[in-house]
Amino acid sequence: MKIAKAVQRLIESFERLPGIGPKTAQRLTYYLLHVPQSELDLFGSAVINLKKETVTCSSCLNIAETDPCSLCSDPDRDQTIICVVEQPLDVLAMEKTGMFKGLYHVLHGAISPLNNIGPDEIFIRQLLDRISQGQVEEVILATNSSMEGEATAMYIQREVINLKPLTSNPPKVTRLAHGLPVGGDLEYADEVTLSRALEGRRIY
Amino acid sequence: MKIAKAVQRLIESFERLPGIGPKTAQRLTYYLLHVPQSELDLFGSAVINLKKETVTCSSCLNIAETDPCSLCSDPDRDQTIICVVEQPLDVLAMEKTGMFKGLYHVLHGAISPLNNIGPDEIFIRQLLDRISQGQVEEVILATNSSMEGEATAMYIQREVINLKPLTSNPPKVTRLAHGLPVGGDLEYADEVTLSRALEGRRIY
Repeated sequence: MKIAKAVQRLIESFERLPGIGPKTAQRLTYYLLHVPQSELDLFGSAVINLKKETVTCSSCLNIAETDPCSLCSDPDRDQTIICVVEQPLDVLAMEKTGMFKGLYHVLHGAISPLNNIGPDEIFIRQLLDRISQGQVEEVILATNSSMEGEATAMYIQREVINLKPLTSNPPKVTRLAHGLPVGGDLEYADEVTLSRALEGRRIY
Repeated sequence: MKIAKAVQRLIESFERLPGIGPKTAQRLTYYLLHVPQSELDLFGSAVINLKKETVTCSSCLNIAETDPCSLCSDPDRDQTIICVVEQPLDVLAMEKTGMFKGLYHVLHGAISPLNNIGPDEIFIRQLLDRISQGQVEEVILATNSSMEGEATAMYIQREVINLKPLTSNPPKVTRLAHGLPVGGDLEYADEVTLSRALEGRRIY
């Protein structure tokens, strides 16, 4: 049986997305057949214009509308702290806390030798360039606590304290705390998390 | 933090899809930022043109490119058997078996009083109209074996045998067999499926 070409095309487009298999792609496509054309137009043009209407901020490398982005050009933000994250989504997560008022640096990945991603494939050089301008007093390493994220954090920490122009007064390098997630039950915590929580215990 | 408008728009579009939550919508959107523009254009135009380039076949009500659809207008298909399914995707599933050479009828739903979907909200009237033309010898009820699908099958069966012009010679009404799925283990089958498999046992 020949399936309608327009349907087939959309199924194939959905299938290319990560985490969406053939069945989900079919389901989404047939769902969209019941959606008003105006909504399809919105969705379609949002896809087409996604990259046309966004730029990468040349300073923090976050996805933004302007270059420099609204965060980097905000005079109210603390220019002396840089929070280093793997992905633009991580910036979003950090911003939702409302606790951080410094700047960001998006690496767009993590060091992962198994996938042929070395330090030069992600934006570490750009981070070091920013730091070597001398204004930065603290670098918060907020990469994931996966193997790759830890390796990236370790690599950056070593590079930062060895930065040539700053060897006399290198910026402080910190890492996000690991421990029990808030609202989590002790009995369900894995050993590694619990060990970290114990190591990092604080006076109450 | 203000997220780029183009990004926000696409996240919102993805969120409206069934089974896609805010996190997945974000993940898909940021994934698409790394995809070449040509692929975004393909995806976007596939969404916009989905409904423009498809029609509902006026006979079987399947989604198709032409009206009547390629199945209904195929002279090689058996015009005397109609397989009744809930959704266009079910036609696809049936066609993949390669076993069925008759016509289809897509109800676009199932009777579900809890959701205010009665017999008149789905395309049962059109099915009865087709049958009352007198050509049909068998109606295969291939609705799902959910409560709604069973109710729909029962309703259609009753309506078909009561069809006025055919009361002397009503078409045969059959239902897809229920039983153990091929490749499934007996020990994991639920009681209802196993009872149905026992009821429907055949001479080996």
